[in-house]
Amino acid sequence: MSKPSNPQGTRDFGPAVMRKRNYILNTIKTVFQKYGFEPLETPAMEKLETLTGKYGDEGDKLLYKIRSNKSLQQEINEEVGKKVSDLLGDRWVPGDSKLGLRYDLTVPFARFVVQHRNDITFPFRRYQIQQVWRGDRPQKGRFREFTQCDADVIGSKSMVNEADLVLIYKEVFENLGLADAVLKINHRKFLEALVEELKLDFPVTKFTTSLDKLDKIGIEGVTKELVALGVNENQVSQLFAIINQAELTSENLNRFLSAFNNNDSAKQAYANLSQIVGLVEHSRGDLKIELDLSLARGLDYYTGCIFEALVPNSGIGSISGGGRYDDLTGVFGLKDVSGVGISFGIDRIYEILEERSLWPEDIQNNHCVLLCHFSEANQQFAMKMASTLRDKGVACIVYPDQKKIGKQFDFANKASMTHAIVIGDDEMESGQIALKNLTTGVQDKHSIEELVAILS
Amino acid sequence: MSKPSNPQGTRDFGPAVMRKRNYILNTIKTVFQKYGFEPLETPAMEKLETLTGKYGDEGDKLLYKIRSNKSLQQEINEEVGKKVSDLLGDRWVPGDSKLGLRYDLTVPFARFVVQHRNDITFPFRRYQIQQVWRGDRPQKGRFREFTQCDADVIGSKSMVNEADLVLIYKEVFENLGLADAVLKINHRKFLEALVEELKLDFPVTKFTTSLDKLDKIGIEGVTKELVALGVNENQVSQLFAIINQAELTSENLNRFLSAFNNNDSAKQAYANLSQIVGLVEHSRGDLKIELDLSLARGLDYYTGCIFEALVPNSGIGSISGGGRYDDLTGVFGLKDVSGVGISFGIDRIYEILEERSLWPEDIQNNHCVLLCHFSEANQQFAMKMASTLRDKGVACIVYPDQKKIGKQFDFANKASMTHAIVIGDDEMESGQIALKNLTTGVQDKHSIEELVAILS
Repeated sequence: MSKPSNPQGTRDFGPAVMRKRNYILNTIKTVFQKYGFEPLETPAMEKLETLTGKYGDEGDKLLYKIRSNKSLQQEINEEVGKKVSDLLGDRWVPGDSKLGLRYDLTVPFARFVVQHRNDITFPFRRYQIQQVWRGDRPQKGRFREFTQCDADVIGSKSMVNEADLVLIYKEVFENLGLADAVLKINHRKFLEALVEELKLDFPVTKFTTSLDKLDKIGIEGVTKELVALGVNENQVSQLFAIINQAELTSENLNRFLSAFNNNDSAKQAYANLSQIVGLVEHSRGDLKIELDLSLARGLDYYTGCIFEALVPNSGIGSISGGGRYDDLTGVFGLKDVSGVGISFGIDRIYEILEERSLWPEDIQNNHCVLLCHFSEANQQFAMKMASTLRDKGVACIVYPDQKKIGKQFDFANKASMTHAIVIGDDEMESGQIALKNLTTGVQDKHSIEELVAILS
Repeated sequence: MSKPSNPQGTRDFGPAVMRKRNYILNTIKTVFQKYGFEPLETPAMEKLETLTGKYGDEGDKLLYKIRSNKSLQQEINEEVGKKVSDLLGDRWVPGDSKLGLRYDLTVPFARFVVQHRNDITFPFRRYQIQQVWRGDRPQKGRFREFTQCDADVIGSKSMVNEADLVLIYKEVFENLGLADAVLKINHRKFLEALVEELKLDFPVTKFTTSLDKLDKIGIEGVTKELVALGVNENQVSQLFAIINQAELTSENLNRFLSAFNNNDSAKQAYANLSQIVGLVEHSRGDLKIELDLSLARGLDYYTGCIFEALVPNSGIGSISGGGRYDDLTGVFGLKDVSGVGISFGIDRIYEILEERSLWPEDIQNNHCVLLCHFSEANQQFAMKMASTLRDKGVACIVYPDQKKIGKQFDFANKASMTHAIVIGDDEMESGQIALKNLTTGVQDKHSIEELVAILS
C-alpha cells in the first residue's frame, strides 16, 4: 500500500508541537479558571437536527455527517438498498445520517443548557476546549479539524460579565507576551442605530455582513456593496463619518451618542458600554479598548456587545471574537436566556508566537533525564536509580537497549533532553554518579541525593 | 421542536464530572510523564483506508464513516444523484465516504510512526489521551464515544520497556487509591506453546479467542468450545492442569517451563518474563504480579507479553490492557518495528472510584470565591477587590446581578463554592471584609491582605 497519511486539512501534533499548544491552552485555561469558569465537555457527535439550520446555508454545507454501518441496513429495505448500491457502487455506504460532527462549541453549549436547565445553577460560567470540524477547502491557516477555546456566561444580563471577559482578554494576551494585542469592541445596537439613522430599508444583518468586509475590501468596496443594496452615496458618506475608531472612554461614547441624534438603539448601546467602561476602570485603570463602530462580526445571533481581538502587524486577522446573544437557546425552546461569550483561535495565536519567537525559553526541552549505562549490570543499577528519581518527581528513562554510550547520548540529544546520567562500574562502586549537561557538555559527579536536588 | 438531547451512547460532562475525570486523567498523565512518555495527538478523522481491515470484520462494522456535503456533489453525476435521492428521500446524504472516525489510538499511532518515521527518534515513547468512536449498541458502561488513555514505546525490543509499564501500572493504581488492583501478565509464546504441546491443529488466535472467555463462561464453557474445535477432553484437562494462576516469580516461571517440556516457544516466553521479574525487582521489591496462562487478550496483533489489570470484587472487568506487538506498522509498509503499550479505561476506573468513594476529599468543591454585595457601589468595590485576588491567583467571581444577599449565597452553595466574601458599606469604609465559610457557616472579618493569605 502507499505511504499512509492523515486526511487533508487535519494535523498530527507530535511532542514538540504539543508542548507549544499545551502552553497556549494552559495559559488560557488558567485565566478562565481564575474568573470562575468551569470545565464542560460535550460529545463530538451531535444529532443532525441539533446542528442544521444554526450556521446559515453556507454552514450547513460544511457540516460533516456521520454514518454508522449498522442501523442503516435495518432502516432501508433490501430492494432499495440493492438499487442504490447498483447506482453508486463503491460510493454507496448505507447508514443512518442522523449524526454530525460538532461545527463549533456554541450550539452544543446551547443544547446542553436547554437539556440540563434544571440541574444548572445560573448564571453558569463554563469554558470548553475541544475540537470542531468543518468541511471547508483547506488553505493556509484554515483546517478541517481544529481546536476552539471558548468561555461563556449564560443566565445573566449584567455588564459585569462583559467586563470580566474584557479583563480575561487583557490577562491572556499579557501572559502570552502579546501586550500589543488590540481589543476591539462594538455593540449591535449601534449598528441597528446606523441602519435606522441612515434610513436603510433592509435588515441589520445584511448591513453588517457588508460592513464586516471593511478590513478586506476597504471603504470603496463596502460603498460599492451598499450602493448595490440601494443606499445612496450621501448616506454612505454619513456612515463613514460616524464610523471611526476611537478609544473606549466615556467621552468618546458621548460623542458617538450625539452623532446618533439620541437614537434609542444608540442609547442602549451607550448605556451598556458606559457601564463596562466604569466596571473595567474599577478593576484596573490601565486598560485600552478600541471602540470600533465598523466591527460587525458575521454571526447572526449576537444582539449586544461584540468583541474582536487582533495583533497589529502580524499579518493575521482576528485571533478571538465574541459577543452577547439574547436568545441562543431559543432555537431549542428555552426563551429569554441571555449570555455572553468569547472564543480564542489557538492556531492563529500559535502562528504569531512562532513568528515572534515568544515561547518560554525552555519550551523545546524534554524535561526527562536519560540514564545511560555500559552493561546489563549497570542497567539494573540504573533501574533502581530511576525508581528513586521518579519517587522524587524527576522524569527519567533508563536507555532500554545495550548500545554504545555515544548512541545513547545521541538519543538524548535528538529527544531534546537536557541531562544524561552515566552509570558505569565506577559509579556503582563509589556511589558518585556522573551527570552530563547536554546543553553545555559539562560532566561532573554527584551523590544520588545531590542528583535529586539538582534535577527536581 | 422537541427537547434537544445528545446522541445515544454519548455523554455531556458537566463541571462536577469533569473535575473527577480530570483527576483520573491527570493522575495517569503525571505518571506517564515521569516515565518519559511524551504527548501526541492525531486527528479524529482518518482516511478510511487507514482504518478498515485493522479491527477484524466486527470492528469494520463498528466504524463511523464521515461524509462532507461538498466533494460529493462533484463526484456523483447529477442524474445518478437524482435517482438515488428519489429512492432514499431524506436518508440520502451524498458525500465522499473516504473518511472515518478513529476507532482506537493504536492504529492512528502506527500510521503516525510510519508517516513520520524520518522525524521520530526511536525508541519513541508517546502517550495519547483522546476520544474514540465505535458504532456499538450502547449499554451500561459501553459508549459510542469514549476516552482512551494510551502509552506506547516503539522501536525497542528491550524488556526494560515492559518493566517500566509494569511500574506505571502499580504507580497509577496506588495514586488512585486502588492498591488492591491486580496486574496479570502472560506471554503469547506461552499460548503458542500450549497449542504446540497439546498438538492442536488450528491457529493460536482461534485458541486464544476461546480462552479469553474463561472469565465469562468458565472451564466448562471453554472445554465445550475447544471440544467443538476438535480438541479431545484429555488434551483439555492437560491444558487446565498447566493453566493456573501464580505469582510471577522466578520459581513459578521455572515450574511452568518444565510443564512445557522445554518447548522452544515456552523458552522464549520464559526468557522475557524472567528478565521483567529481574528488572522490576531491581526497581522496587514489593511488586506482586499475577502470572496467568489463561490470559489471552483478543487482539491479533500482540506477539509477546500481554497485560491486563482489574480490581477484584468491583464487579467490573479489566480496567486496562496491553501488550507487545512485533509488527503493528507492517500493515502500513514499515516492517520489523517492535513496540509495547498499555491502555487505561477511564470510564471503568471512574465507576470504581465512584462506587468506593475514593475521590480526593475536596473534589466536589468549586475553588472559586463569590464576592457578594448590597449595592452597585459595593459591586464596583468588589470588582477592584476581585482584581487584587486574581492577581494573587485566587479564583473568584463578583456576583453579576443586584439580588438579595440570600440569593447570592444560594448561588454560591449550588455552585459548590466554599467561601463567600460579603461587601457592604461598612466593609468599604473599614477595609475589614466579611468572609463566610459556606461549609461551616462561620463568618468573620479580615483585611484584604489576610483574605489573600487565607484564600490562596
